[in-house]
Formats: sequence, C-alpha cells, structure tokens
Amino acid sequence: MRALFVGRFQPFHKGHLSTVKQILEKFDELIIMIGSAQYSHTEHNPFTAGERIEIIKETLLDENIPFEAIYIIPVPDTGIHPIWVAHVQSLVPSFDVVFTHNKLVEKLFTDKGIKVQHTRLLDRAHISGTEIRKKIAKQENWEQYVPPKTAELIKKKRLDLRIIELFGEQK
Amino acid sequence: MRALFVGRFQPFHKGHLSTVKQILEKFDELIIMIGSAQYSHTEHNPFTAGERIEIIKETLLDENIPFEAIYIIPVPDTGIHPIWVAHVQSLVPSFDVVFTHNKLVEKLFTDKGIKVQHTRLLDRAHISGTEIRKKIAKQENWEQYVPPKTAELIKKKRLDLRIIELFGEQK
Amino acid sequence: MRALFVGRFQPFHKGHLSTVKQILEKFDELIIMIGSAQYSHTEHNPFTAGERIEIIKETLLDENIPFEAIYIIPVPDTGIHPIWVAHVQSLVPSFDVVFTHNKLVEKLFTDKGIKVQHTRLLDRAHISGTEIRKKIAKQENWEQYVPPKTAELIKKKRLDLRIIELFGEQK
Amino acid sequence: MRALFVGRFQPFHKGHLSTVKQILEKFDELIIMIGSAQYSHTEHNPFTAGERIEIIKETLLDENIPFEAIYIIPVPDTGIHPIWVAHVQSLVPSFDVVFTHNKLVEKLFTDKGIKVQHTRLLDRAHISGTEIRKKIAKQENWEQYVPPKTAELIKKKRLDLRIIELFGEQK
Amino acid sequence: MRALFVGRFQPFHKGHLSTVKQILEKFDELIIMIGSAQYSHTEHNPFTAGERIEIIKETLLDENIPFEAIYIIPVPDTGIHPIWVAHVQSLVPSFDVVFTHNKLVEKLFTDKGIKVQHTRLLDRAHISGTEIRKKIAKQENWEQYVPPKTAELIKKKRLDLRIIELFGEQK
Amino acid sequence: MRALFVGRFQPFHKGHLSTVKQILEKFDELIIMIGSAQYSHTEHNPFTAGERIEIIKETLLDENIPFEAIYIIPVPDTGIHPIWVAHVQSLVPSFDVVFTHNKLVEKLFTDKGIKVQHTRLLDRAHISGTEIRKKIAKQENWEQYVPPKTAELIKKKRLDLRIIELFGEQK
Repeated sequence: MRALFVGRFQPFHKGHLSTVKQILEKFDELIIMIGSAQYSHTEHNPFTAGERIEIIKETLLDENIPFEAIYIIPVPDTGIHPIWVAHVQSLVPSFDVVFTHNKLVEKLFTDKGIKVQHTRLLDRAHISGTEIRKKIAKQENWEQYVPPKTAELIKKKRLDLRIIELFGEQK
Repeated sequence: MRALFVGRFQPFHKGHLSTVKQILEKFDELIIMIGSAQYSHTEHNPFTAGERIEIIKETLLDENIPFEAIYIIPVPDTGIHPIWVAHVQSLVPSFDVVFTHNKLVEKLFTDKGIKVQHTRLLDRAHISGTEIRKKIAKQENWEQYVPPKTAELIKKKRLDLRIIELFGEQK
Repeated sequence: MRALFVGRFQPFHKGHLSTVKQILEKFDELIIMIGSAQYSHTEHNPFTAGERIEIIKETLLDENIPFEAIYIIPVPDTGIHPIWVAHVQSLVPSFDVVFTHNKLVEKLFTDKGIKVQHTRLLDRAHISGTEIRKKIAKQENWEQYVPPKTAELIKKKRLDLRIIELFGEQK
Repeated sequence: MRALFVGRFQPFHKGHLSTVKQILEKFDELIIMIGSAQYSHTEHNPFTAGERIEIIKETLLDENIPFEAIYIIPVPDTGIHPIWVAHVQSLVPSFDVVFTHNKLVEKLFTDKGIKVQHTRLLDRAHISGTEIRKKIAKQENWEQYVPPKTAELIKKKRLDLRIIELFGEQK
Repeated sequence: MRALFVGRFQPFHKGHLSTVKQILEKFDELIIMIGSAQYSHTEHNPFTAGERIEIIKETLLDENIPFEAIYIIPVPDTGIHPIWVAHVQSLVPSFDVVFTHNKLVEKLFTDKGIKVQHTRLLDRAHISGTEIRKKIAKQENWEQYVPPKTAELIKKKRLDLRIIELFGEQK
Repeated sequence: MRALFVGRFQPFHKGHLSTVKQILEKFDELIIMIGSAQYSHTEHNPFTAGERIEIIKETLLDENIPFEAIYIIPVPDTGIHPIWVAHVQSLVPSFDVVFTHNKLVEKLFTDKGIKVQHTRLLDRAHISGTEIRKKIAKQENWEQYVPPKTAELIKKKRLDLRIIELFGEQK
C-alpha cells in the first residue's frame, strides 16, 4: 500500500516528520508531494522546490527513515481546482490513500472518490510553516520546531536570510 | 559533487542505466531529471511522469544502485528555450555538471555557463527511446533493450498496450 | 440518461447530424461538446467556437431536433492529455456515456472508467471535416455533405471565403 | 437582435431571472455567458461551469422561458483585461448589446465600441450572489432569493453542502 | 556600459525622469523596462503597455533626453519569481547593471549574480505611482508630480478619466 | 499618422530595411513589432527578442534612419488567433495602418476593421529570413542580404555560430 502526503514544506518541520513516521508505520511506501512547486522568493513560499527536496531528503536520511520507501515529488499549482487531482495523479505514482490536514485538498480528493486519512497532530499553535517563517523573519528561536538537519541546512544555505529579506521588504 | 542527468525516459532503457552507473562512479549524487513531465498518452510521450518515476525507482533498486545518492525529479516543459535552464534550476537541487546527449539541452546549459559532460554511449541504433517505442508498437522483441525490472513493470502495468493503441490510432 | 458527443465541428456535417439523431433515440439528453474551442483562423480550425455554436443551434432547430434536450458547450484544448477528462468534466454537466470516433479521446475516457459508445458511420470517405474543408478551399461542391441550414449559414457569413483564404496563404 | 448577458451565476438567482425576462421582451435571442468558467470549489466560485449550465437550463425550462431563444456558454477568465473582449467574442455568437451591472465589464466593452445596457434591478441588498452564498454557508434561509428549480437542484446535488464546507475551512 | 531600469510606470513621474537622467550621466545606454506589461484597466495597472511606451517616449523627447541612447521595452509578468530574471534577459538587450528601488527585484537579480545600483530618490511620500493614481482618482492636483508632457498626454488621451472610473467601481 | 510593421526579424534583412524606408516616406512614425518574441534557440527563431531589438536599433542608427520616429517593441505569440489583434493593440501605441506580407496577419487585422497596406518587395527568392538562416547554417555567403551593421553584429555576437549549431543538431 502506498500513501500520498501533500504539503508545501515551507519549511519541513517536526509535524511533517511525525506525519512521515506515522504513515510509514502503516504503509509500505510514501510519496511526499511538494505542492506549489513553481513558487519561491515570496513570504508564503520562500524556498524553491529544489531546495525543499534537498532539505527533506537530507533530513529523512539523517533521521534514519528507510529512504527506499520514499518518493519526493514536486507538483506545480494549477490554480484551477477541478483539474488539480488529475494533475497530481499524472505527476506521481498511483497511491491508495491521501494524508492532508488541508480541508480543501481533502474535499478535492474525496470528491473524486479517493480516501483521505489523518495523522495525530503535534502542537499546531507553534509547529506550522506560517509560524516558523514568522519566527525566522523576526530572528526569534525557530530551530526547535524543525528537525536538526533541516535547521542546519537552512542556515548553511542562508535561506533564513532570504526569509528575513522577503519579510523586510514588505515594511 | 552532484550531477544532473536529463532525459524523457520513454521508456528508461539500458543506455540510461549505463549512464547512471558511469556517473555514480565519479559523482556523489545524481539527479535524474524527467523532462516533458506534463505529457503522456502520445506516441512521443506515452507514459505519465508518475509512471516513469515509479519504473525508474524500482529498476534502480532492483539493480542495487545506492538509492540514497539519487534524486528522481519530474520537470514540465516550458516550451520557451531561454527560460528553461532557470526553470530547471528552481525545481531541482543545485548541481555541478549536466549529462545529456541532446545538443539543444547542451547548448542551453553551456550558454548559461554550466558545464556539460558526456558518457560513453551503448549501441545507439537500437537502444533509443524512439526505436524501443516503435518495437513495442509493432510487438517486436523490445525487452532486451531495457533493464529486466523495467520490462516487467511495463508489462505488469499494461503500458505496452497503451503504446500499441497510441501508435495504432495514427493509421 | 445523458450522453456526451465530442467533436470539433469544422464544420458540422451530415455525419454529425446522424450521430445526434442516433443518440437521441436512446438518450434523454445530449451534450454536444465543441472541442479546440479557443482556435480559429487556421486550416484545421477555421471557425471560432461562437460561429460553430450558432451554426449547430440553427441547424438543429431547422432539423426539428428537440432543443430542450440539447446542450452545446465549447471546451478549449488543454494540450495536456492526462488532465483533459477532468477539464471536460468541469465544463459540462455530468454525463453517462461518451460518443466519439476519435481513438485517443476514447482511450482517455475509458482510462478514467467512463463508458464510450459508437454510432453507425455514414460515408466517411466524403463526410469528414477534413475532406469538406478541402472541398470548400478548392471551391468544389461541398454543400451536399452538410445539412442545408449549415451550408446556408456558412455562405451567408462568408465563412467559405475564410477557408479559401486560409488555404490559399499556404501556397 | 441578440443580447449578451454576462455573469458568474454563483448561483443563478431571481435577479438574474428577472434580467433574462426583461431582455427577452426586447431581443430575439439571448446569450447567457457564464464567466470565470474554469473555477470551482472556492468561496467566490463554488460551482463548476457544468453545474451552473445545467442549473440555468433546467430553471429556464421550468420557468417556461422559450429555450430556442437562449444560448448558455461558459467563458474562462483570461486574467488579462485588454484581451478579454476579443476572447469573449471568439467564444460566443455575435451580439448587438451587452447587459451587465459590473462597471469594469461595462468599461471594457464600451472601450471597444460595444453598446452596454442595463435592466431594472431587484432588491440588490439581498439578491446578490455574494449574499446568497453567505446565507447558504450560515445555513440561513436562502431559498427565497433563487428560482424554485435552482433551489431544488442545489439541494438535490448537495451543492449547498459544498458551500458550507468551503466557507468552513476558512475558519 | 548599458543599464537596465525596471519599473511599471503607472504613470511615469518626476522620480522616474530623475532616475533616467542620473543613469545617463554614468552609462552610455539605458533600457527602460516596462514591467507587468500585459496588464491594464486595474487600479494598480490602469494603462496598457502601449500607452506607457508612447507617454515615456514623448516625454523623453520633450525633455531633450538623447533618444539614441534609450530602449523602452515592455516585459510581461511571469508570476514565477525563479524564472523571472531569465525571462527579462531574453526580452531585452544584454546589460551591465540594474537600477531598481524594489527590494524583491533587487534580490532576484543579485541572487543571479547581477549588480544592482540605486539612484538618489526625490520626495518619495508624494512622488510614487500609488500616490499619484490616488490623487488622479480623487481629482486632486497631481500634475506637479509628473513631467509636463506626461500630464499633457494623460489628459489628452483621457487616461485620467479611466483611473477615476476604475477607482470608482470599487465603491 | 503612425504605421505598424509586423515581422519576426530572424534576422533583420535588406527587405525589412527597404520596407522601413518606404513607410517613413509616408508616415510620421513607425512601430517595428517583433513577433514571436518569447522564442529563441530554434531553427525558426534563433535569436532572442533582446538580440533582435539591439540589432535593429543599431542598424537603423547606422543607416541614419531618424530614430525619434521609431518604436521597436517585442510582442510574444499567443498561439490563439482570435485574440491576437487585441493582444498586439495592448502592447504597442495606437496605429493607423499595418504593413505586412503575411496573409494570415493581414486577414486577422482586416477582420477587425484595421487597414493593411503593402510595400514593394525586393528580390524575395533570396531576401527572406528562411533563406538567410539556411545560408548561415550552410556557411554560404549571406552577408549581402542584410544591412552591413546587422551582419557585423551577428558575427560579433557569434549568433551565426548559434544558427550553425541549431541546424546541425537536427541531422
């Protein structure tokens, strides 16, 4: 059985890692689908798909996740909801179940007869991409909310600086 | 050092596998970029990106390629050559060298100052995607030109039948 | 029960009219889907979607087809086969069966689990859009292959002249 | 004389029906153009073009509007104002006058030399798509603002439930 | 040496003219790149690219700027930041330095290794496109913030009226 | 009076220069519209819009054409004929007459009520973009068919080499 996990991973955080682990307890294979893949250099989507893919792969290897069970696949947004599921289906291998906490994503898949499941959420007030990007922008402590390898790579590639600059320009 | 290998992989064949092995002798990591990712169900591009990704991953695992060193990433065509390199760079992790046997791809990368290298080619008269698709369409012997796992999956998923039908409709 | 009939209708001809009548013998409602709707002013697609819609509606009324049972809906091409069925489904009311003589269209629908049926064909050597456009371009007798109202409107709107000009410019 | 009536019809309501009737008093034929046709599953555009077309057709038949005089045609947004009138003109039959209460639509047509007229408005504070969608989302009484057949179909197809879910996810 | 000056010029104002003059003191040639070229008829982008090009050319000639040193080139937005620099580079002649006061534009160019410089700003509180469009919409005195020829052409072409109408419709 | 001259200018040749001179005898201003602006690095469109703009500007200055009377504006293809005239009209200043030798371009403009005129043609068998690109690819004598400055710049920028490479890869 193969599961699809949909996210933007801006950035990959401990909630995402927990979801990956929970899914792998029950499924043989997992597709991590990186949504909004074409965007970068915005407050909402600071990192390119390539940067996100590399960070996720390095982090999963660092966490000893069995990488043979994993697909990491970027999927650009279409902006058109009624064709989005077919678009996803053409870009990723076939899957049996979808995992998402986004209600619209859930609705689009269930409307096409595809099963959606949920994982237990960690502390959502703090562990969310939006909150973590804000903390990075304000130069507050954010490293605790992401896996160690993710924090290391964001700093090594100076992607924290990009977020600070992107948020700064709005003022 | 990380290399980028550009292809459409319609289908993945023994020439591709040889290239993967040759690159991994010299580079730590390899990005297999699946071009024309949005297309399927044509004579030129019969398989979806998702199908191609799954076949390549399964084949590499079957061939005992160290999968931790591999990225497999679909990249849709833009149709606009002068922006294509930037488009690729945003969708894949950073890379040091490009491998391709396509002259236009080579020119587009070298025009942007990116290094392109070549691998030794196997018997190109037979081992080319175009030739293999034709053989599948004519129901001639094609399995010898692709890795065993690739042949197995194409038949199991009945993708050979799709090619026969797609070629048939042109008559 | 509602049927979908897919065509480009460049122009609407007696084969199309026969198909419409055959479908209405068995189905309560019929959606006539005008494909490649965004194109016009080419040899392959000389008429705009608006022109095709008007000609078909006027012809069906002239032929005493019960118009309350008919939908005529333009659908632009996407150019991307794997999302095309979802695209069609979002632009037309739900349907139970598809009628088409195009093998690719048939394959795309059946791959998504949608039933495809066929009608008896009239004399296909002469009654085809391609042949009729050629005859119009050469100013040969073409009126016999289309319903009388269609011929009348093409001439009244001088659309035959457009075809002659479009073919002429290629020489 | 043929009139064009531009709207999104999310959903079709009594104001729209009144406009249709007023136009048919003065014009032989009416094109009901369904704008933003590619969108669905958003708060602003919950229904697909196909759903809107079916609801409008069924409602007009139920209201004994002479259907031979009607075209119902979906038109996708282009997002580019200066080409929008030409885009509309290619997708619908030729028309003599435009009816709209949207000031931008009016300006775009009049800038191209096309005549725009207005109908008498019903109680706009309540009978507007935006207000009706909000009422549906809050499960307040909304049926009185749309024609009976429209209310019946929205409930039968459970499209009211979709609006409740789409609004719910924003909270 | 050739400089690129990036703006939307909605409308061209005295700050833009000052920047043009400052650049021409140091560079042989100047490319004035008109961004968001495809848009018009919105509050943010009221004028078409064609209107902006004509106004800028006429104004520069009126100001005795040596026109042989000038390129005025429209560039449509892509909406995709990571390919934007390559898109610009394909549409304009090669350049040595970029002038912009937009932080995102600056970041996108510097990330690609392209040098960005700044000119001295005039009174930015009043001389900004946003402020001038608001003043035009409110029919306040705005002419003092733009070069005389620009003011003359805006009024002659009745583009001030378009802004008033576009802002008005939002109320 | 302002004229629009439509071409792709791959490359700008003596026929184009003759047309420019003939138009300027009768019109105050001339817009040179560079079509298919987004394309480059193909046999049909080897040069970018930026390269074409620079070559044309330098050539006109070298030929002592009064540059204050000239606009050089790139226009990307839309691929959709019925919206193309509106697209052009939004990207260039208003114009009174169009000059083109392309029958489709002529038809699209005249269908919208815009006047099209012709200039006397030079020796078309040799002086055509297609013929000149072939000669460059075969390294035959081509310089005599383009203005001296154009030949100089093509060689200085090594664009002749690009054409040789692009044609070569097809073999």
